[in-house]
Amino acid sequence: MLPDLMNLLRNAVGTDHVLSGETAAPYCTDWRGRYSGKALAVVLPGDTQQVAAVVALCAEHRIAIVPQGGNTSLSGGAVPLPQGQQIVINLSRMNKILALDTTNYTLTVEAGCTLAKVREAAEQVNRLFPLGLTAIAGQCEIGGNISTNAGGIGVLRYGNMRDLVLGLEVVLPDGRVWDGLRSLRKDNTGYDLKHLFIGAEGTLGIITAAVLKLFPHPQSVVTACVAVSDPAVAVKLLAHLRANCGDKISAFEIISRSCLDLVLAHIPDTVEPFVTRYEWIVLIELSDVLQAPLDAPLLNALQAFGTGILEFAIDSKNNAVSWWNLRKNISEAQKREGISIKHDVAVPISHVAEFIAQANTALRATYNGLRIVAFGHIGDGNIHYNVSMLDSAKNPTFIAQSQQVNSIVYDIVHGLNGSISAEHGLGQLKRNEIHHYKSALELELMRSIKHTLDPNNLMNPGKVM
Amino acid sequence: MLPDLMNLLRNAVGTDHVLSGETAAPYCTDWRGRYSGKALAVVLPGDTQQVAAVVALCAEHRIAIVPQGGNTSLSGGAVPLPQGQQIVINLSRMNKILALDTTNYTLTVEAGCTLAKVREAAEQVNRLFPLGLTAIAGQCEIGGNISTNAGGIGVLRYGNMRDLVLGLEVVLPDGRVWDGLRSLRKDNTGYDLKHLFIGAEGTLGIITAAVLKLFPHPQSVVTACVAVSDPAVAVKLLAHLRANCGDKISAFEIISRSCLDLVLAHIPDTVEPFVTRYEWIVLIELSDVLQAPLDAPLLNALQAFGTGILEFAIDSKNNAVSWWNLRKNISEAQKREGISIKHDVAVPISHVAEFIAQANTALRATYNGLRIVAFGHIGDGNIHYNVSMLDSAKNPTFIAQSQQVNSIVYDIVHGLNGSISAEHGLGQLKRNEIHHYKSALELELMRSIKHTLDPNNLMNPGKVM
Repeated sequence: MLPDLMNLLRNAVGTDHVLSGETAAPYCTDWRGRYSGKALAVVLPGDTQQVAAVVALCAEHRIAIVPQGGNTSLSGGAVPLPQGQQIVINLSRMNKILALDTTNYTLTVEAGCTLAKVREAAEQVNRLFPLGLTAIAGQCEIGGNISTNAGGIGVLRYGNMRDLVLGLEVVLPDGRVWDGLRSLRKDNTGYDLKHLFIGAEGTLGIITAAVLKLFPHPQSVVTACVAVSDPAVAVKLLAHLRANCGDKISAFEIISRSCLDLVLAHIPDTVEPFVTRYEWIVLIELSDVLQAPLDAPLLNALQAFGTGILEFAIDSKNNAVSWWNLRKNISEAQKREGISIKHDVAVPISHVAEFIAQANTALRATYNGLRIVAFGHIGDGNIHYNVSMLDSAKNPTFIAQSQQVNSIVYDIVHGLNGSISAEHGLGQLKRNEIHHYKSALELELMRSIKHTLDPNNLMNPGKVM
Repeated sequence: MLPDLMNLLRNAVGTDHVLSGETAAPYCTDWRGRYSGKALAVVLPGDTQQVAAVVALCAEHRIAIVPQGGNTSLSGGAVPLPQGQQIVINLSRMNKILALDTTNYTLTVEAGCTLAKVREAAEQVNRLFPLGLTAIAGQCEIGGNISTNAGGIGVLRYGNMRDLVLGLEVVLPDGRVWDGLRSLRKDNTGYDLKHLFIGAEGTLGIITAAVLKLFPHPQSVVTACVAVSDPAVAVKLLAHLRANCGDKISAFEIISRSCLDLVLAHIPDTVEPFVTRYEWIVLIELSDVLQAPLDAPLLNALQAFGTGILEFAIDSKNNAVSWWNLRKNISEAQKREGISIKHDVAVPISHVAEFIAQANTALRATYNGLRIVAFGHIGDGNIHYNVSMLDSAKNPTFIAQSQQVNSIVYDIVHGLNGSISAEHGLGQLKRNEIHHYKSALELELMRSIKHTLDPNNLMNPGKVM
């Protein structure tokens, strides 16, 4: 049966676009080399009809499918399982811009378009597509961004990927195509199916095209670098700035001392932002479509804040670039330092400081010599909280205890009504963990929906649940 | 069995809160008197556990349930069917504010809170809850707003109700309670169940509480009244203003001559906005959290627009109030004039002018002596397009042909990839109509989801589908 399937796949998409053996290998391992699996074949369809044909063939032969875009998942969501017997359907060849409507502020694209291509297409007509995953924008693809409901730095102002999608085209697990490619801002004609597929990590169908919302392009941008005594001040400052400057805040990021030290040690041409070495730095960006400069309102709001701000500076040129370099290089600096136990968690914004304090205390009570690297998007309550040993020789032993470390961190997150996966999804990484933190009823509802749409469990099995 | 059920219901919520006969009647007819039905009883639970108990009793006895809030549906979605044998569960007693977090910008409320109460609670702490259904804010309830994914004037800036909800508590059709009452801005831990219940018009469960997003309160507001030559100019003007003023645009409404004439004729103390009687008027509101006046940027943007604007004025005091009075009284003026065939449709913003032109042409080719009252939210592509006879004596005959009129209008909407229900939902009004305009596959998916969550079809049957 399988040789037969391979021929049918070749007929469906062309011989050149069915890979196996060595040519398939790069598609079977994630970009960080954490997850590897085996695939019967990697298929690269050229259009939606080919995706539908391939899915129908797989359904007929009861072969499981792994939908894949740019393969930049941080949770092993886009690679096949080690057991093999799966077909990877990679959408990268489907990278056309289908329609651009500057009046409706919408862009219709195939799922294989990279985020960078989408952002560029918007820029060319003085529009903004605001999803901000700067580091991987040239590699990650819109289909994956939607399937994982990607987040990033701009969420506090523009929302998650979910909020940036008006319509979808999806190939269902039986190979039929659902055409929900609408570009409407109001539509109340029954259940909103697109939200089922957004964030489902490819377990309910394959997103083949989408209508994306565009925004007017900001003309003025200003950044403040603010040293604060602790995260609680940062949280209060955000609420204060929102009340005073409103939706102009396009980024609000916190960086701990340990992050700064790593970046300054590993990344050339980075500098301490102030003469004093502060424990916590907040980077704030305001932007506006009006060309009016934003320095004065930002200055006024910071001056009106009261105690807790230790020092601050405002800039929209070289200093701003240099401050943002500190933030953008944290992941790279961590990678150069060595492996760590990473957590991508969210709590209500009002609980961010409590989360950091509780997690620090609990971990330090259990382990000595920890390096805790906490940073991220205070603006939406999403903290990246990564832990390793200061003495790298002790790290392998520590990393082996990931599960205990995760339990300590996730129990605190759960106690604060938070999420154990803010923006990276569950994938393979947290598919078991989630059973401890979601109610039995919610898991049952998720399973019912999965079973309804994909009764034979062919769509990305072993991910999410 | 039924007398037994009635006793069990009385035990569950207290005798005073189970109504039947005359006291139940007001809950069985919608506010405009268009839809009437019969109920075995109207039950008013006091908390979520009581809702769960009542639903469990109904499930056990296989009695259908009609969830009801403020009973302001325009589509007959919240009243029982004429056949009777249904229980109305009215949530109005559950009107508590459960939590207010000014730092997280969230408000947690029971479903029976009126929209006005929610807006007030936000105002008291210098926050904004932006859902703008001004006319019925004192009567409509948050549970209904969520179940119908309510829209209104502010959608272009703040989104639909769907976009304003962070978490939900829902009583499922079997009486179990799903606790999804989260207040997170990022959470990617599986399928986003809340979006299933939002806009489902009570057919999948009863929303009992919600976490709502709040926004900073605008401090500066300015309005422009702009006479344009036709709707195409208005559409272009919106795109131009977004590009130049950005997300400060909090309303962008179009009003046709016929609307103005009706308002001026029926509503006291209303005045023509300009000396010249223009065919099309656009009302634009800009607002900002900064206290900087917005008159200058609005003036600049309007002056830079080019041809098509016939006259305009800008104001933030008495004139602005008087212009908005024209817009806000259109529905009331229409009611006083008499009945009409109403359409609540949406198309991509770039197609609004085509829609109005095509519908006008097609209807005038079929019927003589029409009054076409077109107005609404160009800002999100949602036009209220209402048709009657200028000669009211001919109206009854005309109204009798609603179905043909609807077909003409909806076929044009469909041809422009639009929606036949932008913000009013399907209810009873459009549950059949939708079969002509949704694909068989989409209807099948909707039915599968309904069957999965409500296998015995007990939750608001005869609505939506």
